[in-house]
Amino acid sequence: MERKRNIIVGQSGGPTAVINSSLAGVYKTAKERGFHKVYGMLHGIQGLLDEQYVDLSTQIHSDMDIELLKRTPSAFLGSCRYKLPEIHENIEIYERIFEILDKLDIETFIYIGGNDSMDTIKKLSDYAIIKGHSQKFLGVPKTIDNDLALTDHTPGFGSAAKYIAASTKEVIRDALGLTYHKDMITIIEIMGRNAGWLTGATALAKTEECDGPDLIYLPEIPFDIDKFLEKTKELLKKKESIVIAVSEGIKLADGRYVCELSGGADYVDAFGHKQLQGTATYLANYLGAEIGCKTRSIEFSTLQRSASHMASRVDVNEAFMVGGAAVKAADEGDNGKMVVIARVSDDPYMSIYDVHRIANNEKTVPREWVNEEGNYVTDDFINYIEPLIQGDYQPFMVNGLPQHLVLKEV
Amino acid sequence: MERKRNIIVGQSGGPTAVINSSLAGVYKTAKERGFHKVYGMLHGIQGLLDEQYVDLSTQIHSDMDIELLKRTPSAFLGSCRYKLPEIHENIEIYERIFEILDKLDIETFIYIGGNDSMDTIKKLSDYAIIKGHSQKFLGVPKTIDNDLALTDHTPGFGSAAKYIAASTKEVIRDALGLTYHKDMITIIEIMGRNAGWLTGATALAKTEECDGPDLIYLPEIPFDIDKFLEKTKELLKKKESIVIAVSEGIKLADGRYVCELSGGADYVDAFGHKQLQGTATYLANYLGAEIGCKTRSIEFSTLQRSASHMASRVDVNEAFMVGGAAVKAADEGDNGKMVVIARVSDDPYMSIYDVHRIANNEKTVPREWVNEEGNYVTDDFINYIEPLIQGDYQPFMVNGLPQHLVLKEV
Repeated sequence: MERKRNIIVGQSGGPTAVINSSLAGVYKTAKERGFHKVYGMLHGIQGLLDEQYVDLSTQIHSDMDIELLKRTPSAFLGSCRYKLPEIHENIEIYERIFEILDKLDIETFIYIGGNDSMDTIKKLSDYAIIKGHSQKFLGVPKTIDNDLALTDHTPGFGSAAKYIAASTKEVIRDALGLTYHKDMITIIEIMGRNAGWLTGATALAKTEECDGPDLIYLPEIPFDIDKFLEKTKELLKKKESIVIAVSEGIKLADGRYVCELSGGADYVDAFGHKQLQGTATYLANYLGAEIGCKTRSIEFSTLQRSASHMASRVDVNEAFMVGGAAVKAADEGDNGKMVVIARVSDDPYMSIYDVHRIANNEKTVPREWVNEEGNYVTDDFINYIEPLIQGDYQPFMVNGLPQHLVLKEV
Repeated sequence: MERKRNIIVGQSGGPTAVINSSLAGVYKTAKERGFHKVYGMLHGIQGLLDEQYVDLSTQIHSDMDIELLKRTPSAFLGSCRYKLPEIHENIEIYERIFEILDKLDIETFIYIGGNDSMDTIKKLSDYAIIKGHSQKFLGVPKTIDNDLALTDHTPGFGSAAKYIAASTKEVIRDALGLTYHKDMITIIEIMGRNAGWLTGATALAKTEECDGPDLIYLPEIPFDIDKFLEKTKELLKKKESIVIAVSEGIKLADGRYVCELSGGADYVDAFGHKQLQGTATYLANYLGAEIGCKTRSIEFSTLQRSASHMASRVDVNEAFMVGGAAVKAADEGDNGKMVVIARVSDDPYMSIYDVHRIANNEKTVPREWVNEEGNYVTDDFINYIEPLIQGDYQPFMVNGLPQHLVLKEV
């Protein structure tokens, strides 16, 4: 039975390879549950404030479009990094948002994003309760960084981890082919400001035919540059090609980012986060000068969050599921909460979704999942992450390239 | 009928995603033609001089192994960047090589590589003729840069182009999702010291659902930084997200590399080539300072030459074919030559192999395949490159990651 009221969905924060799979899940479940219209905010809450939205039925015409959307990286609707003020700081913004929601006859509001987006859900549902608005607000977790607390992991993480592990294997092979009677150190820089989940994922490159990286440095452990040099020299006695994975966010014991040592990290984004870049280059130059061998640095850069051509099937499917689950939860009365993934079993891997209150906590890698020296992850870490990169979700290839679904002007 | 004599094959220069497909082609054809043993030089001619080689029958046990080898990036046998001196400069090295070849009962010598490797083939065959040695020397072209003259294109180029085009599409989507009422410039740096073939390949990202890069700068055209700034400002009046592809090797009219402006390019390799890095970062910082908008730089780095997970089927198959063709050509009396690919037709794409004398010429992008302003490639360029990225060659996925064939200790 078709209802009279509508649902609106938005995407926020950094893109991932599967953020649109969650959008597809929201759309499909909303349609199945008989919502009248499914609106998409363009560029999240920031666009909504400008009344920028689209009726998704003008964009998605078939199950084929849904499958194409699931294979499209980066926010289909556009993203934003807009931090909602506290209610008491600027009540006008809240009034404006609810005015638009009322105008569009919105019953349910779904926001796909990370910690900052879950904070938005919390604030909007608080405001609705205080003011007696009837809308329900549900969050869908999304981040390659896997730094959301309360969920076993976040959609987006598995695909980024898979891309990073596969590319690390390829880089290790590249390095091995090039070294002969001449040492070479390759330093790979991985995203993850405070959480080392993605940097740790390079350990998955250790397989029956690959040694994996030789050292892994997470931002959770203070980085000691002298020990790092010592350890690298020690390894060079045993092998010619050393591959080291470092997080962009590694810091010295005094709190300075390693990338700041070279004078980088000037730019600060809307959330007050320093932009980090240049950690691997700094360390490669440092080791080159200290050891005198060839060094090179590789930043996986934004490729690691947009490589839908290397998506994990587990991840794509879970992203789709949590999108649908959010619609269902709101429909069944939940409000101001987020959908989380709960792991039922490691082997065989099984997960279910659950709904949880929001707490804006960052989840970092537990100390006991890093070895004592602080330069590699443990088997527990690997057992946790391995199920999340399983299975492929092949792109739809057109003229030799992956095809994407993109927003059409209406 | 099995022969008494043997064949040896080596790999040289920068790795590619399909250099091992050529190795597989050499191995398969050599076995079919009844060579007694198929040896692989470890790390090319440099390893051979140290008597580092392997009997490939200890490594490849089945057609399944051949298929796995075709999916393994980087030189399976190890590569080198060893430049053979002129014969009159160091005749001892030549005597040493032929002593080893005689000891191993070598009838045919195949070298897979770029311009420098073809030069090696030429010198060794010249020496053999002068000294009356009976071995035949054949070259198999390989380079992501596509800078070998006389062949329509080189194996390795198509797969690198495919990876670059697919990743460019993903980066463009990433950028579009992030820009809203705020300009952002993304600069992508692509390999190619003197030849802009790979940088031009970013134009393939222009598809029915993607604008492609906005500007493309090849190293063949002197780079004018004032015009570049002007053009970028002009584009920003029309769109918020600008994506620009630049070759690592772009130079000012006075001959200085753009990356040198920031003080980079100190390292010089064994062939006397300057190591280039930092072009995109320099330009991103420059535009950020001049225009005052957000800029970011992305280097595709070594990923573009090792991404066998995004290989082109046309490329993998042609690489295999030219490997086999070299064995056949030597067997039929050719010597001191290289196998080339001749294009029979664009649409439908058809190619055949041929055998050609060696000329150490670099093939760059013709001026008429770049637009008048020097900031984009023409349709002729696209028609040339498009057939080369067609079709996939799916990796063999094991535990969620591409599996590779690696050298086993004997």
